[in-house]
Amino acid sequence: MNFSATSLWSPIDGGITTPTGFKASGIKAGLKASSKPDLALLLAPEGAICAGTFTQSLARAACVDLCIERLTLKSGKVRAVLVNAGQANACTGQRGLIDSLSATKALADRLGVSAEEVLICSTGVIGVPIPLDNLISSLDHLVQELSFTGGHNAATAILTTDLVEKQIAYEAFIDGRRVRIGGMAKGSGMIHPNMATMLAYLTCDVGVPADLWIPMVQRVARSSFNSITVDGDTSTNDSFLAFAAGPILDDRYLGALEVGLKLVSESLAKAIARDGEGANCLLEVKVIGTDNDDNARTIGRTICSSSLVKTAIHGCDPNWGRIISAAARAGIPFSLKSTSLWIGPYHLIQDGEPLAFDQKAVSVFMQERQKSNYLIDDSILIVLIVGHGSGEAITWGCDLSEEYVRINADYTT
Amino acid sequence: MNFSATSLWSPIDGGITTPTGFKASGIKAGLKASSKPDLALLLAPEGAICAGTFTQSLARAACVDLCIERLTLKSGKVRAVLVNAGQANACTGQRGLIDSLSATKALADRLGVSAEEVLICSTGVIGVPIPLDNLISSLDHLVQELSFTGGHNAATAILTTDLVEKQIAYEAFIDGRRVRIGGMAKGSGMIHPNMATMLAYLTCDVGVPADLWIPMVQRVARSSFNSITVDGDTSTNDSFLAFAAGPILDDRYLGALEVGLKLVSESLAKAIARDGEGANCLLEVKVIGTDNDDNARTIGRTICSSSLVKTAIHGCDPNWGRIISAAARAGIPFSLKSTSLWIGPYHLIQDGEPLAFDQKAVSVFMQERQKSNYLIDDSILIVLIVGHGSGEAITWGCDLSEEYVRINADYTT
Repeated sequence: MNFSATSLWSPIDGGITTPTGFKASGIKAGLKASSKPDLALLLAPEGAICAGTFTQSLARAACVDLCIERLTLKSGKVRAVLVNAGQANACTGQRGLIDSLSATKALADRLGVSAEEVLICSTGVIGVPIPLDNLISSLDHLVQELSFTGGHNAATAILTTDLVEKQIAYEAFIDGRRVRIGGMAKGSGMIHPNMATMLAYLTCDVGVPADLWIPMVQRVARSSFNSITVDGDTSTNDSFLAFAAGPILDDRYLGALEVGLKLVSESLAKAIARDGEGANCLLEVKVIGTDNDDNARTIGRTICSSSLVKTAIHGCDPNWGRIISAAARAGIPFSLKSTSLWIGPYHLIQDGEPLAFDQKAVSVFMQERQKSNYLIDDSILIVLIVGHGSGEAITWGCDLSEEYVRINADYTT
Repeated sequence: MNFSATSLWSPIDGGITTPTGFKASGIKAGLKASSKPDLALLLAPEGAICAGTFTQSLARAACVDLCIERLTLKSGKVRAVLVNAGQANACTGQRGLIDSLSATKALADRLGVSAEEVLICSTGVIGVPIPLDNLISSLDHLVQELSFTGGHNAATAILTTDLVEKQIAYEAFIDGRRVRIGGMAKGSGMIHPNMATMLAYLTCDVGVPADLWIPMVQRVARSSFNSITVDGDTSTNDSFLAFAAGPILDDRYLGALEVGLKLVSESLAKAIARDGEGANCLLEVKVIGTDNDDNARTIGRTICSSSLVKTAIHGCDPNWGRIISAAARAGIPFSLKSTSLWIGPYHLIQDGEPLAFDQKAVSVFMQERQKSNYLIDDSILIVLIVGHGSGEAITWGCDLSEEYVRINADYTT
């Protein structure tokens, strides 16, 4: 069964508390030096199922280990996620796990659930421990603030160097019922997710059996969070958690639901790429004609990761040699003779032969896109056909600016 | 047999024409818009053997295809290399090969050798054809200029955005004979060689049979040019050509010779990393304790390629979480618990536990290194122990500066 995303799902105002039954809160707990909100809580209704995908980094944070352990132990039946921003609690030695255990135990006591039903995610500087006293003394306040409209506060409290909050909601009428999906995420730097992005959360007010929900969430992660890159660096803390809670949806409608989950996740993923550190535009790369989708994704991500492509985009320079050159080192076989390339509406290469094109016009097109507003149409689309296979994928990235260097040259000091 | 590099080989002034019998020239042929020298020629003595390693890019230039074809056809017995700077002659469609054939034929006629004995290398903008009339009308002058002291002119004529020329020579007394090795290279941007670097040339005035010379050159490329990165982008034109010409060296002394070849190649490779676009220092990463050397090299190159590590180095920010994080996504298994880390003389992590350290002192150390002079000691050494295996490797990179972005945001336009 094929579902058209646009006819089925409509965007609505909201975020993770838009689906029925989910509560959230976000407060200032004195974890960030900036005194901005830095502690968030998501509480799922009883009976919720959670599936997660996590970083493949060997240096993954203690909180990630704890999430994986508890999701397995409880077969996805967890109730709450605590998120602190400011400290990644990665590479903090043995203290990392002890702090994660203490924080979740203290929260579980206040929520009246077992510690195994509470997850914790951390984001911020690597190697720095969480100021645990501040966190624990803020938990009463955090729990008091929980509400069915707290999604916005939670979306704000999980940010670090992000410039804008990232939350979204969609709804559809399926099998005579209103179904809503909400999501929030944070990104900005160290973004090249391998299985999930920095931090992203999705809620949904229908029930799905765990054995169907888990692979569905993995497929959704692959075409969204695992298809973006800001700087090629995979974080130690990447986590994507997706909750489903409500009356079980008939199997016939799972395809329709997955369309909605992808809409929400792709929107959040694109918002992360667009809000990459120092970025001025969204780079959207569509690769077509490989043997399979994964190969297309590998080529697309290599293009989106290339410093030379990213600086050319930033400089509005239609230097297409860098795009071809990046594709050609991705490790996926293709023939230059079957390669065609477009930047926006401009056709630059046909079957390996460079075409004469108006360099100035392409440059102006790229300039205009970088002037556009956030989340309006500020994307620069590159389409690369590399053969006649059935594989295709879209990947997202952003330009590389002097501002990126400035932000990152002076992060901890 | 073990040979100590420092006791055996001494640095001497010179370059590719320092070894006996090699001639070179470099002139202005009107290929670069800047009117700088842009055409170089290396002529090897009769009987020379040449081995080459080339880019693994799928979009490799026509000139690379031609080099590979002719080296195979002549079993390495080629005489001359023509190098043009300004146009990479990659992705130029069918014209690329035709131009390479025409240029080498015209040069062969003037040198009195067969066209199959002439190689051609190109460097510059991708997708732009060589101004062939300018090149061919300059060949008489180029051949007239050939001399036993022309190495310097050749080293200048192959540069593009490089700030300094890169040439070097070493000598040793082996088996009662004076042996000299010379080299030159160009690098700067699109540097992440996969089998060889952008353009590098090595000459040597002893004879080595082709079946020994070819694998020796491959080993040398692996520990030198294939161990550097500037921006993670593998070029379409990477080529390393190494000539041996002279009385055959006794087998017993091949180890001593290889030590010298590595010295010359590593010096050139480090000079390329140091002169990376916008770079202020050389980043030297030593990884120890993997199962094998290749795994150590993969981890080291991932660290040297990380935009987050490179910007932290630029900002003199001892943000070691980024180093660990980059290592942890390299795809090589290791345990965080066996991981120790040093930046310069400062010990930051021992067996996975972060140590208290003087953040200010490390930052000052990094600042001092960035003030140092080119090719003096401006390297920032990172040592990472990841286990107890026998593998180890040194890789080289550079910092990522605002200047890199400026250079690359406006290259073709």
